[in-house]
Amino acid sequence: MLSLVDIRARIEAGTLTPAGAVALCREAIAAQEPRIGALAHLSPDAAVPAQGPLAGVAVGVKDIIDTADMPTGMGAAIYAGWRPKADAAIVARLRALGAVPLAKTTTCAFAGIDPTATVNPRDTEHTPGGSSSGSAAAVAAGMLPLALGTQTGGSVIRPASFCGVAAIKPSFRLLPMVGVKTFSWALDTLGLFGAGIRDVAHALALISGRPEIDLGSEDPGAPRIGLVRQDFAGTADPAAVAVLERAARAAESAGAVVTDLALPEPISLAFERHAIVQDFEARQALAWEYAAHREALPPILRGQLDRAQALTPAQYDDARRHAHHARRVLKDVFSDFDVLLTFSAPGPAPRGLGSTGDSRFNRLWTLMGVPCVNLPVPVDGLPIGVQVVARFGDDGRALSAARTIERALAAA
Amino acid sequence: MLSLVDIRARIEAGTLTPAGAVALCREAIAAQEPRIGALAHLSPDAAVPAQGPLAGVAVGVKDIIDTADMPTGMGAAIYAGWRPKADAAIVARLRALGAVPLAKTTTCAFAGIDPTATVNPRDTEHTPGGSSSGSAAAVAAGMLPLALGTQTGGSVIRPASFCGVAAIKPSFRLLPMVGVKTFSWALDTLGLFGAGIRDVAHALALISGRPEIDLGSEDPGAPRIGLVRQDFAGTADPAAVAVLERAARAAESAGAVVTDLALPEPISLAFERHAIVQDFEARQALAWEYAAHREALPPILRGQLDRAQALTPAQYDDARRHAHHARRVLKDVFSDFDVLLTFSAPGPAPRGLGSTGDSRFNRLWTLMGVPCVNLPVPVDGLPIGVQVVARFGDDGRALSAARTIERALAAA
Repeated sequence: MLSLVDIRARIEAGTLTPAGAVALCREAIAAQEPRIGALAHLSPDAAVPAQGPLAGVAVGVKDIIDTADMPTGMGAAIYAGWRPKADAAIVARLRALGAVPLAKTTTCAFAGIDPTATVNPRDTEHTPGGSSSGSAAAVAAGMLPLALGTQTGGSVIRPASFCGVAAIKPSFRLLPMVGVKTFSWALDTLGLFGAGIRDVAHALALISGRPEIDLGSEDPGAPRIGLVRQDFAGTADPAAVAVLERAARAAESAGAVVTDLALPEPISLAFERHAIVQDFEARQALAWEYAAHREALPPILRGQLDRAQALTPAQYDDARRHAHHARRVLKDVFSDFDVLLTFSAPGPAPRGLGSTGDSRFNRLWTLMGVPCVNLPVPVDGLPIGVQVVARFGDDGRALSAARTIERALAAA
Repeated sequence: MLSLVDIRARIEAGTLTPAGAVALCREAIAAQEPRIGALAHLSPDAAVPAQGPLAGVAVGVKDIIDTADMPTGMGAAIYAGWRPKADAAIVARLRALGAVPLAKTTTCAFAGIDPTATVNPRDTEHTPGGSSSGSAAAVAAGMLPLALGTQTGGSVIRPASFCGVAAIKPSFRLLPMVGVKTFSWALDTLGLFGAGIRDVAHALALISGRPEIDLGSEDPGAPRIGLVRQDFAGTADPAAVAVLERAARAAESAGAVVTDLALPEPISLAFERHAIVQDFEARQALAWEYAAHREALPPILRGQLDRAQALTPAQYDDARRHAHHARRVLKDVFSDFDVLLTFSAPGPAPRGLGSTGDSRFNRLWTLMGVPCVNLPVPVDGLPIGVQVVARFGDDGRALSAARTIERALAAA
């Protein structure tokens, strides 16, 4: 994989130019893209700024995120070839930092769950996950050092786990959603994919203008970790259980205190209501598409919106009240723990492209708005990651704890 | 003015058809628009549904709100003639109810404060207010029975007060913002303009799918009213003070208990930080426009964005913390009061078109996310309204209290 931090170090050392770094990506894309199908559009002639803290960093932009210089197809026939007027706020920010939005990456239609044709670079017989399929796959295949995704259920952390790349879904609205197609405004969250934890931390610190998020050279100290199995969300595969256990033991070897933790009941009651918030809002967010182009919608999304028509404001209000209460309860949980460690996904990427996998270990955290990091755990065969979760606004802590475990796993 | 409730009653009684109702609007537009300049675009051939609870209701849509069948110019040269792909969620919802989005209404560029050329129908030497200038003016001039605006500072309540029309800025996110150009995602709120309180209540109940918001025939009982002068925001003109006093006495004549109330200090600390939240987000929301078209931005907005570049995440976080705290304090205030009664604006519409007026009595409430109603108070000369504010989610209470005062004023 292409490491953003390594690329930037080589550019700062003068052994690589920004244009040279982007050329490396174009070479990798030429070699890998025919096999993977991660890109919805590749810019033939994107300008490469010579300056800026992200100069030389080519970025994959999920195709529900507006770009003024590339089509934005939403993964949907309705929007094929559509050209927005403006860059999304996150894209404008990347350009201001010197980065190069080089390609649009495949997405499930409107960031839903109807699968794309993208395959998993670790084993092309398997799904890369979704809905940020192309972003996770492009980074995993070494085509790009940075890619943008969004998560409404588990669309950042799950594909990162399936493809074996690092990712962060930051605190809700840490990154601006302007110019990103809405599925559910209370849930949709921009996220970043990179080769390792240092890469996504560095990118997030720059994009958000919050240098404290970056990983310094100092040891942040061993975190107090709550080990959470999310029994309310069902069970995980033995492979995922084993990986979570390995990550916990690695954390302990680095000095962390790891304590089993069952989350209080209000948390599970909120978890159960994620879909109500999501679908009640999706019905409104996609009202034009549903009214004007229902037959052109892919089948899973169409069925989801069909069912969503029956949801009532009272159900929605009840779901929001439960979520609000659970956020306070979760805040109290974090008085005893720096981070939580849990599953990123129920197991490795499912075989075939019929499903993008299951978001059940991600949905709660999206609803809570807390920062989540996928940490790939080295395994034989298909990748599996673990998820590190911190309190709202404590994105740096989630990243530093993930980095501590990443180092311990590499040393083990 | 055209009353939505009256139009619907005539249609239900069979004395008016939906097409006939829309034709009335077209006639009024032909007569008034040359004098007022409230419209950015008039649909030449909008279809008129025969059915639906809002059939026959022609709607003015603020020109920062996406429409698939009309240009969406954002009040800015950069977007002149721009055609979005889809309807905004609120526009799709209106169509589903049978309403006819008939025209786009003028807006200050990107819903900022650079004035439009629209004049106040009550006195064309005066501003109609902004940024929802055309929506307020079109309703006031009797061109349309319903219009959509947005408020980030005071862009719904202020022009409603200046133009002498009823309006509601509902609870934050009661109406979906998908497809509405963002200025500040924590503040931007869709609102409705209509001839009277019953008109906006009926429309909001239908659009939101919450029939309890509508004003029933039952007497809701006399409200407990806190009379708030917002001293932290500065003083109001004698004319505004007199109108607030009249409204308070009218409320008492209807049985309401009116108590002077000074808001606790955390409220004023939040008020002072409104601009930080707004401008820190506007810098991101308009990053593409600023980077690619700074010279084409109108002067006030350009200067605002120039200054916003210096704002830091720490200032923003501090402002959000103050706002969060103030929301809790305000919630406690509402344990003693059903609604608050306060100024809609510091006075009548200023003369000339150099300024859209001052939002200082509106900004706090936008930041708090609570529902606000402008109630026009009958006066000689330029209109002035008063503002009725309820707790978050209690839009129906704000409307019913405003209706109580409206009736008492009419009877006085």
